[in-house]
Amino acid sequence: MQLTLHADYALRVLLYLGTQATGHIATTKQISSSYGISNDHLVRVVRTLKDKGYVEVTAGRAGGISLAREPNRIRLGDVVQQVETNLQIVECFDPKTNTCPIVAACQLKPILAEALNVFLEALNKYTLADLLDDRRRTRLARIFAATGA
Amino acid sequence: MQLTLHADYALRVLLYLGTQATGHIATTKQISSSYGISNDHLVRVVRTLKDKGYVEVTAGRAGGISLAREPNRIRLGDVVQQVETNLQIVECFDPKTNTCPIVAACQLKPILAEALNVFLEALNKYTLADLLDDRRRTRLARIFAATGA
Repeated sequence: MQLTLHADYALRVLLYLGTQATGHIATTKQISSSYGISNDHLVRVVRTLKDKGYVEVTAGRAGGISLAREPNRIRLGDVVQQVETNLQIVECFDPKTNTCPIVAACQLKPILAEALNVFLEALNKYTLADLLDDRRRTRLARIFAATGA
Repeated sequence: MQLTLHADYALRVLLYLGTQATGHIATTKQISSSYGISNDHLVRVVRTLKDKGYVEVTAGRAGGISLAREPNRIRLGDVVQQVETNLQIVECFDPKTNTCPIVAACQLKPILAEALNVFLEALNKYTLADLLDDRRRTRLARIFAATGA
């Protein structure tokens, strides 16, 4: 049971942008290079984050990405729920592709759905701002400066 | 974020065995055939369930699998925790393979660990017996009789 890279990278993008000074615009290249991850993949992740209203993307030579909301208005459970491409804990969560024959008599699905719900609620107790108190923000910015393009 | 098939199939094996009359011994062939899933995979899952003390396996021609505990002593969160081969919500959960450079300054890991914990706790509110009240047990047994080998 692991988040897809799409959700994992989305959290990383938000963390990166949250360490930047207000008004600063970052590029996907800077972010992917800081984390040592695929830039192509990151471009798709940023598109999702834009669609869901978490980041703004400005075009052009001086363009790039910035947070579309204050960090204290970005709840971690909401991000995972909206960005994770696979929240189907087991296959019967998707009736279209389910092959398990006992689904009509099985009580596991609502129990797993309840557990998934408390997982997301537990994450929603925290916002991006909780990950970025002054000390952590400084340390993260220092790491990004050392590893980035 | 999806359980591996190993954990998914483990829950299915326990459900199947829980519908059988006390003392009845099932074969992996019967179980895999009932669910329409790989018997080879199921054999590995049964080995894990035996190692963790959930099932008994008897050898020989009349041998097979049965529950090693009463259904009300099998908590669903414990099963997932002990049988799921990947509980690393994100890559930094495994320091040996982690490549994310910000791990030392990042607060996400303990927050995700806390959420995973409440996920397992939510499952532990239920035992196998909760999935097998008389009505459901009868319906499940009927489905297994219709689909099984």
